[in-house]
Amino acid sequence: MFKKILIANRGEIAMRILRTCKEMGIKTVAVYSTADKDSLHVRFADEAVCIGPAMSKDSYLKIPNIIAAAEITNADAIHPGYGFLSENANFSRICEKNGIKFIGASPEQIEKMGDKANAKATMKAAGVPCVPGSDGLIESYEHAVKVAEETGYPVMIKATAGGGGKGMRAVWKAEDLKDHWESAIQEAVAAFGNGGMYMEKLIEEPRHIEIQVAGDQYGKACHLSERDCSVQRRNQKLTEETPSPFMTDELREKMGDAAVKAAEFIGYEGVGTIEFLVDKHRNFYFMEMNTRIQVEHPITEQVIDYDLIREQILLAAGTPISGINYYPKLHSIECRINAEDPYADFRPSPGKITGLNIPGGHGIRVDTHVYSGYTIPSNYDSMIAKLITTAQTREEAIAKMRRALEEFYIEGVKTTIPFHRQLMDNEDYLAGNYTTKFMEDFVMDRKYDNHH
Amino acid sequence: MFKKILIANRGEIAMRILRTCKEMGIKTVAVYSTADKDSLHVRFADEAVCIGPAMSKDSYLKIPNIIAAAEITNADAIHPGYGFLSENANFSRICEKNGIKFIGASPEQIEKMGDKANAKATMKAAGVPCVPGSDGLIESYEHAVKVAEETGYPVMIKATAGGGGKGMRAVWKAEDLKDHWESAIQEAVAAFGNGGMYMEKLIEEPRHIEIQVAGDQYGKACHLSERDCSVQRRNQKLTEETPSPFMTDELREKMGDAAVKAAEFIGYEGVGTIEFLVDKHRNFYFMEMNTRIQVEHPITEQVIDYDLIREQILLAAGTPISGINYYPKLHSIECRINAEDPYADFRPSPGKITGLNIPGGHGIRVDTHVYSGYTIPSNYDSMIAKLITTAQTREEAIAKMRRALEEFYIEGVKTTIPFHRQLMDNEDYLAGNYTTKFMEDFVMDRKYDNHH
Repeated sequence: MFKKILIANRGEIAMRILRTCKEMGIKTVAVYSTADKDSLHVRFADEAVCIGPAMSKDSYLKIPNIIAAAEITNADAIHPGYGFLSENANFSRICEKNGIKFIGASPEQIEKMGDKANAKATMKAAGVPCVPGSDGLIESYEHAVKVAEETGYPVMIKATAGGGGKGMRAVWKAEDLKDHWESAIQEAVAAFGNGGMYMEKLIEEPRHIEIQVAGDQYGKACHLSERDCSVQRRNQKLTEETPSPFMTDELREKMGDAAVKAAEFIGYEGVGTIEFLVDKHRNFYFMEMNTRIQVEHPITEQVIDYDLIREQILLAAGTPISGINYYPKLHSIECRINAEDPYADFRPSPGKITGLNIPGGHGIRVDTHVYSGYTIPSNYDSMIAKLITTAQTREEAIAKMRRALEEFYIEGVKTTIPFHRQLMDNEDYLAGNYTTKFMEDFVMDRKYDNHH
Repeated sequence: MFKKILIANRGEIAMRILRTCKEMGIKTVAVYSTADKDSLHVRFADEAVCIGPAMSKDSYLKIPNIIAAAEITNADAIHPGYGFLSENANFSRICEKNGIKFIGASPEQIEKMGDKANAKATMKAAGVPCVPGSDGLIESYEHAVKVAEETGYPVMIKATAGGGGKGMRAVWKAEDLKDHWESAIQEAVAAFGNGGMYMEKLIEEPRHIEIQVAGDQYGKACHLSERDCSVQRRNQKLTEETPSPFMTDELREKMGDAAVKAAEFIGYEGVGTIEFLVDKHRNFYFMEMNTRIQVEHPITEQVIDYDLIREQILLAAGTPISGINYYPKLHSIECRINAEDPYADFRPSPGKITGLNIPGGHGIRVDTHVYSGYTIPSNYDSMIAKLITTAQTREEAIAKMRRALEEFYIEGVKTTIPFHRQLMDNEDYLAGNYTTKFMEDFVMDRKYDNHH
């Protein structure tokens, strides 16, 4: 087992990883930018190394600084968390070369699954259902016209290097293709320095349902059931739940089988997530694979009584898995609490937290790195806490979420708490009737603001 | 179902009850003394009524004020929590007469089980094993001499109205009986206004293991397994766990059967606890029954995925139980965090909380009513939080407790956090080798203070 793990991340996920390391008796090294010197992950780690200034590219994304921190502290493994370097094949390779275990996918697996067009070709070869569309990258506008006609409108144009909705366009009819094609490429080049595009059938009334998988170093994988992440705003997940209210036992079997097949096909090592789109007829299509821990992993932990960070560490250390799939015994919901103003187009709201009450009690879990007096820097992701409720039924988990959101107050900054309060009163949400389009006509109501 | 419940309590248990009421869609009324006007239970209840000044006898124990609060707010039920009026037969009877449902035992049941000598006679009649000793109250010193000889030394003298160790004496040999007899009576009269005494065989190497039971209005009861509460200081529980490290499947069956038999014998309605002493040969003896929710109920909730406050409310509303017993699927530990200085004989340490970090993450539950800026009044119980960890095994639950205690800091007052940190490093505790005598030779180590 590892003796010392460097955590190459910040915020709640750094705390999350730190906690499991402590519980496993593994020493920890925190790294931090100057903006994060007062963070809890710095305070609670056994050692902490400053790796640069606030800008991510100069600190949390700066590979030489992180490798140097691991070397001076003699860490034998690095946990990358999510975001930052977690799906960077080059970083995984450099760790390997320096004799430091990267707790995540191998460089080859990241390369195979990180490039979306590439991933799709791999999954097709594995026999996993994929959304009809282009076979890899589209070479030209003329090629795009041809693929769109073969696939049938509506179609989606997507940047191969994309993420967060950038470089992505829905095209409903042939005459709109040219404009969207050009603007998507421009946006992708600006955002990622890569204008490579591919095309897919646009799935109407889509649900985003992902399957958690785990694979060991001996070629064996299993699944840990699904998470429904359809409530998204500009492709950013806002809340997730498991089981999905749309799920059936039959569909779970099929999607679980497909996910295990996908993981075993690429010999996937570690914990990962296969994201699918599910249409209203319960056809499902591979969307992408995340070769890392997900933000929403706690809801899976809650319903199967299992620590996924511990599982990542054990798998990276060579522990074999039993190959038995896990099924939810309870219902769990996560609300992402972001320092954003939901009444001002979810504009980030960094600043100092001047008052804080964190909900507690039966069925409540909170993962956070903030405290009263903490200043949220403007440089990073705006997520400041994850509020997770767990109960025997969906109705009870929602009732718990409603009361926990009522107790949760954060003074000094705007947060998405009012949004979640409103969501827990939304009839469509309560009925489980939501797709990835749900937020398009969601209008915030002032009555959920300043609840106290 | 009840429309509005008045919560006749304060502190964490008032919050606990409030939370479940909210989750069940039941309106709540908080009552509070002037010392508690800034409490969270006052803030989060739908309505709040001040029932008097700080002294409990003028507020939380003042029956007319509480009944008046229920009447003016039109509450149709009262939840008494633990302590205060929760085991007061007179209060239960007055509620009944006023057409307000008392969420707890009937006056007759409280009378039967609240008086310890009475309770023992009842349990003997039910066929539940009891500690040998006097048959009810001892009439005179001469009678005490005779009973002690019949029972065999060592014996315990106990006040029938007792609690918290008051009016209780261990007598190891005949020549010490007279002194202890007199001082115990004096203490009992001073504390409870009742000098009635009974006598029991002193159990050596005793464990305090209690069985949670639930009974419905139709005569049916079930058990929800055990809690080991042997780590006590002057008969005050400090930490509890389930399952007990001393438990076997066979003993659990036997103790569970005895507890169900006891509950059904008295037609017990609601949630209650049968406390047993278990000797080193795994003989068990009825000690007392608590006809109310216990402080340590959350550990049972954690291992059976069940809300016991909800169960109390359902049972009071006439819901029948299935009669199926519940068995622990996980391991759970509770540490009681008190505002006391463990380095100064656990002296109370009221005052203002100037800084607070509450632990979170996987497997952590915190039940508390305090927040940063809250002033702990000196008038009440010193418990300010319950920290509960849950995991697949005892070892993992302890590892989680250790890391959660490390994260937990409360500035401005002294707390028992250092004690619990030391306990989680104690070899006997780690081995599960502890009896109710455990604390007698426990010496606090300064190194667990000011952990940060």
